[in-house]
Amino acid sequence: MAISVDTFFLELNGQGTLQAQIQQMIAEGILSGRFHVGEKLPSSRKLAAHLGVSRITVTLAYTELLANDYLTAKGRSGYFVSQNAPVPPKYTPVQRGTETVDWDAALARRFSGGDVLAKPADWRSYRYPFIYGQADQSLFDHANWRLCAVRALGHKEFDTLTADYVDQDDPLLVEFIARHTLPRRGIAARPEEILITMGAQNALWLASQILLTRNRTAVIEDPCYYALRSLLDPWDCNVTALPVDSDGLPPDALPDGTDVIFTTPSHQCPTTATMPVERRTKLLERARDLDAIVVEDDYEFEMAFLGAPSPALKSMDRDGRVIYVGSFSKSIFPGLRLGYMVGSEPFIREARALRSLVLRHPPGHIQRTTAYFLSLGHYDAQIRRMSKALAQRREALDTAIEEHGLTVAGRGIMGGSSLWMSAPDHVDTTQLAHTLQGQSVHIEPGASFFAGLDKPKNFYRLGYSSIRQDRIDPGVKLIADAIRAS
Amino acid sequence: MAISVDTFFLELNGQGTLQAQIQQMIAEGILSGRFHVGEKLPSSRKLAAHLGVSRITVTLAYTELLANDYLTAKGRSGYFVSQNAPVPPKYTPVQRGTETVDWDAALARRFSGGDVLAKPADWRSYRYPFIYGQADQSLFDHANWRLCAVRALGHKEFDTLTADYVDQDDPLLVEFIARHTLPRRGIAARPEEILITMGAQNALWLASQILLTRNRTAVIEDPCYYALRSLLDPWDCNVTALPVDSDGLPPDALPDGTDVIFTTPSHQCPTTATMPVERRTKLLERARDLDAIVVEDDYEFEMAFLGAPSPALKSMDRDGRVIYVGSFSKSIFPGLRLGYMVGSEPFIREARALRSLVLRHPPGHIQRTTAYFLSLGHYDAQIRRMSKALAQRREALDTAIEEHGLTVAGRGIMGGSSLWMSAPDHVDTTQLAHTLQGQSVHIEPGASFFAGLDKPKNFYRLGYSSIRQDRIDPGVKLIADAIRAS
Repeated sequence: MAISVDTFFLELNGQGTLQAQIQQMIAEGILSGRFHVGEKLPSSRKLAAHLGVSRITVTLAYTELLANDYLTAKGRSGYFVSQNAPVPPKYTPVQRGTETVDWDAALARRFSGGDVLAKPADWRSYRYPFIYGQADQSLFDHANWRLCAVRALGHKEFDTLTADYVDQDDPLLVEFIARHTLPRRGIAARPEEILITMGAQNALWLASQILLTRNRTAVIEDPCYYALRSLLDPWDCNVTALPVDSDGLPPDALPDGTDVIFTTPSHQCPTTATMPVERRTKLLERARDLDAIVVEDDYEFEMAFLGAPSPALKSMDRDGRVIYVGSFSKSIFPGLRLGYMVGSEPFIREARALRSLVLRHPPGHIQRTTAYFLSLGHYDAQIRRMSKALAQRREALDTAIEEHGLTVAGRGIMGGSSLWMSAPDHVDTTQLAHTLQGQSVHIEPGASFFAGLDKPKNFYRLGYSSIRQDRIDPGVKLIADAIRAS
Repeated sequence: MAISVDTFFLELNGQGTLQAQIQQMIAEGILSGRFHVGEKLPSSRKLAAHLGVSRITVTLAYTELLANDYLTAKGRSGYFVSQNAPVPPKYTPVQRGTETVDWDAALARRFSGGDVLAKPADWRSYRYPFIYGQADQSLFDHANWRLCAVRALGHKEFDTLTADYVDQDDPLLVEFIARHTLPRRGIAARPEEILITMGAQNALWLASQILLTRNRTAVIEDPCYYALRSLLDPWDCNVTALPVDSDGLPPDALPDGTDVIFTTPSHQCPTTATMPVERRTKLLERARDLDAIVVEDDYEFEMAFLGAPSPALKSMDRDGRVIYVGSFSKSIFPGLRLGYMVGSEPFIREARALRSLVLRHPPGHIQRTTAYFLSLGHYDAQIRRMSKALAQRREALDTAIEEHGLTVAGRGIMGGSSLWMSAPDHVDTTQLAHTLQGQSVHIEPGASFFAGLDKPKNFYRLGYSSIRQDRIDPGVKLIADAIRAS
């Protein structure tokens, strides 16, 4: 590739002669790794015109660089970055002076430092990846996804692909969700009650911004999805973490003054508990008494291979009190960043306006691709294939756990893609995970899921959506051995 | 497509016999448009098993619906939604009871109601679309975009496509921006100083959240991009709108106490003024005196067909004071929702953390597709093609404006894709735009760009990035006629 003339600028008030400045500019480009070996430099005529200097100045600079072996000349075809020029391994631009801004003072708010789950970048090379929530190449219908994506790239789709919709969603995707996805959860919704989001995270964040403020109180489950806790900044609202039991969130324990309840009734995250219908009724009654809004995160409902999924909490909602959050992260793949929320029109209107301020709308192409993948039936076929594989892996995992004497703390009765596990009290699973890494085993320490400073350390999660069935038993054995050795 | 058995639920405490409930459920599905003509119903055996009722109950319900012409039977292949069944034009689900939530009380914050620019959905069918910021099918390199997208969908790219990167960007895209895009603006940046965003809007929003709070003051240009004003809620910070002149933002007028300055030096939005180098130097000096951060929105720098673009303000920044915002919305297409910001590492760290809370990361597939489009040189070729076409259209527009006697209020000296126009004082361009719609002319009224309640009404913007060259003269004539008739 030729180096564009546009990348050359003379410094205002540059030091030294023009020729020296040009030499330095090129040498810096090479030394910093910005120009690569073999890349062609602009002709002296072009560069001279661009910089507004005489051509001879550029030629002299090139000749000097040639002598120093930064450049080579190939007859009439021009100057190229030399094979022998020193090249650093990676591009690290020269730092231009010391920065003087006091960022401690300039940053009005900080968002870094929340709980995260450390995930090794190379987890796919692990022999025993009990990782959660990543796509499995062997189960994903790559071929049909590709066909749908290509169809959505067609000339006829130019507008869907390229246009700035400001705050609108792809009507095809919204219609499919309304007609086919939501009815499976017992939910009836009009398009004005549906918003496409950048995954469930985006939906939860939108809900938190719209429903909460400094004098309002949110209740979250404890343990819960750590990224939900991170987005409820105690600076912005009061947050109460309510311990869950084996049936999920206990409605009787919801404190007076609760304004917003974040819950995962179908499949509590991370304990996998399913809330029984009686408790759901009670939860809605208690929410009505509190005049609170319920945000239902219905992640992973598709993975119900051990029994029919119970209808969503939203399906029982007569007041318009429940905001429903769905996602394609688990059922298609997380890198898609696509989800949706369903709620009353006044709420969705604000969510749409806020989304428009923050990012306008999810890219048209991924919305249309997903709409095709859903409407052509590939999605259902993929869910069936995933469910079958997950059922087999779950059986292998249940057997191995019994065989090797591990303790299950929570096991989804409908299915799911993970088990919530406990080790003996003295075991710190963060340490355990670190030890197991050396044996090519990945497990997820549970501490990040708990609120407060004194987090239980002996829980962990075993995901089975990305591990081969035949690796499950030996992997579980390694975990059991490591726990015994702790 | 067959109707999935999963979409059927018996209501808890449903009214009437089971058979009546099933009948009603199906009739409702048809009447609401959820089930379409010709769609196959589940077999009576399957539906009975799913609902936990006897098969005869389902069969009786089907027979009744057959008699009422909701369904037809096709011998042994089963029951289908009848051709004669009443079908509403669009899917509008039955409203289930009256909602009781008081949304006026439940909404903690409102985001709707900001200034927007009304854009007819069918603008592509207009003969004279002087619209701004939309992709032109005749200039976009659809074929190569498609090839890059397909390559990014390949099996080898599975991880890039599907993985949950939490807060990471595509290293290929970041490297290209660092090595090739930013140097053209005179900017040197390391990967830790670059964040990929969901378009410039997302970048501006992130900056506003991190740098501003209730006791801080932001300065914006007046007029300015209306969506920037919308995201600076006076509830969150003090906002001062500073009138621009023909050289852009006047540094001397920046009030004491300014913390953050939002500016568009290369190409003021919407007046298209380019800030001269001397004023840029003064702006940075004044910002240093104020200890303020400058957010530089460098939109549309690629469209410099009338002269080399001046280096970005960021290229003159020695303090680390400037946060640079770039976007692919104008140069590739806005529906892509891809941009980037460059700033000091402490700032980018917080922006990355906030982005992760709000949406995690831009979808992997669009990042990789863009990286290929850039690195294979298609992007540069497209910019050249667009610049050539824009130069021709601009010439046609300049000529037509002179010919028909319109008044230019701002004209980008480097190029750009729009002119900022003024009509006589008594003309309300919102009304003018409405009148012109009837003649298939689209212009953009200027009022939304101004701050405050008493917005000037006689400005308008003429975009020339989506109008055919031969339509420019007759379009301008219609505008001139309409102004004279006002």
